[in-house]
Amino acid sequence: MGGTGAYITLSASYFLKNINLVSVVGGDFPKEHLEMLNEHGIKTEGVQIKENEKSFFWKGVYHLDMNTRDTLVTELNVLATFDPQIPEHYQESEFLMLGNLTPSVQISVIRQLRKRPKLIVLDTMNFWMQNTPDELAQVLTMIDVLVINDAEARELSHEYSLVKAAKKILAMGPKYMIIKKGEHGALLFHENNVFFAPALPLEEVFDPTGAGDCFAGGFIGYIAKTNDISYNNMKRAVVYGSAMASFCVEKFGADRLIDLTQEDIDERVNDFVDLVQFDISLVE
Amino acid sequence: MGGTGAYITLSASYFLKNINLVSVVGGDFPKEHLEMLNEHGIKTEGVQIKENEKSFFWKGVYHLDMNTRDTLVTELNVLATFDPQIPEHYQESEFLMLGNLTPSVQISVIRQLRKRPKLIVLDTMNFWMQNTPDELAQVLTMIDVLVINDAEARELSHEYSLVKAAKKILAMGPKYMIIKKGEHGALLFHENNVFFAPALPLEEVFDPTGAGDCFAGGFIGYIAKTNDISYNNMKRAVVYGSAMASFCVEKFGADRLIDLTQEDIDERVNDFVDLVQFDISLVE
Repeated sequence: MGGTGAYITLSASYFLKNINLVSVVGGDFPKEHLEMLNEHGIKTEGVQIKENEKSFFWKGVYHLDMNTRDTLVTELNVLATFDPQIPEHYQESEFLMLGNLTPSVQISVIRQLRKRPKLIVLDTMNFWMQNTPDELAQVLTMIDVLVINDAEARELSHEYSLVKAAKKILAMGPKYMIIKKGEHGALLFHENNVFFAPALPLEEVFDPTGAGDCFAGGFIGYIAKTNDISYNNMKRAVVYGSAMASFCVEKFGADRLIDLTQEDIDERVNDFVDLVQFDISLVE
Repeated sequence: MGGTGAYITLSASYFLKNINLVSVVGGDFPKEHLEMLNEHGIKTEGVQIKENEKSFFWKGVYHLDMNTRDTLVTELNVLATFDPQIPEHYQESEFLMLGNLTPSVQISVIRQLRKRPKLIVLDTMNFWMQNTPDELAQVLTMIDVLVINDAEARELSHEYSLVKAAKKILAMGPKYMIIKKGEHGALLFHENNVFFAPALPLEEVFDPTGAGDCFAGGFIGYIAKTNDISYNNMKRAVVYGSAMASFCVEKFGADRLIDLTQEDIDERVNDFVDLVQFDISLVE
């Protein structure tokens, strides 16, 4: 069990119900996985099932630091021809999370929504920077928050310093930008402000796959739940996203995300508070 | 201008005067550098000057991430035969920072102090782990706080996870351990507690040489100034150490540490507060 759509929506499902998933799978995708998503309150009417095709498949190996990886196999399969269709009752959606996919598909989803969502968050990757730079540049002007990792931020901006990279990328369209640094935490940039949330130091990292998607799901889930798109609330959302990502890596695939409790999440967020909390009274 | 002793004491000099430096230099060390240290309130009676020998010399290149480096030249010179002598009026010293050197020299300094300092902080490196493991193991039982970087923590503990590494190393003697991760911040471990302070995201990193020593100087300087060796105060000291390190990298060598003001430091510490500050009210 995996896939960007599953990771994002499962992670977000701990913050609110009424999540509308748009995606595509092949006939090989187990029906019980869709049912499990439904049980978490995730609507799947927007998930196309192409019975005679195969689901997207990715296989890779992680390096010792669990932060960098080599792709062994990528089979686009059903994603190669994905033409997303927004069901009519999805039209009331207020918050939109666009998972990493062809920018033209992301643009199509934005255009199909008659009322612009309150907040549009977008994930992308180096593949689109290299292969569809014009479409990527276009979608960047249509969104509010860009979420990418440090290597991608450097590639998109041609700057090594993440501070300089963020300035350049914010000038491309997004009002907010989150740079994920894996085990080294995440940075939130907005105008001249920067906020940093560390990753929790863990004894074991079992499988980092999907951690970025779980982060995104927790981030937008928290914002949707609190219905507050201010910078200060986004800082809290980054902490919740980091907490969700820290669960994700503890088991294989999305397994750890299936039966979390609110207590688990509160406890993890408290660990974050303990990790970074200090009070400074300036030295005389 | 550089050298562990200079970086540590200059950094600490912004928190207190009455700093007693023990070191050794060759006849090539400019006298005006010692005078500059004196002007910052640093006593140098414990600095031996070997007129017919050369000072320690290091030359290296930093990688693009400014976090890893290759050593091109290391000449121990005067350090090869260094036999530290503690001047009598240094005996009242209450806080001891042992810079990275042969463990036997570090042990000699501890033994020469008739009254044990309130807090002993030690820096070391992989060279001593490989070449003098027994002496290193011995000095670890004599100190309170160990400060090393992530690669060194992994080498000393034979654990990749820093959480596991810290547990093993705390069992070797130190009550507190700080793991420096360069641009990725620093972790403070004590019993089952962990505190994290990020490095400030900077537009430019000019020269990372000495950043670890500036961190150590700010850390022990803040603790000595506040005269409080509690875990909570150490968290604040880690933030002040990180602030001092962030100045260090802005110019070549120790140049940026020569004319800081209290306002510069307060402003930098406020930047740290802004960087990590958030308030969470747990979601219902």
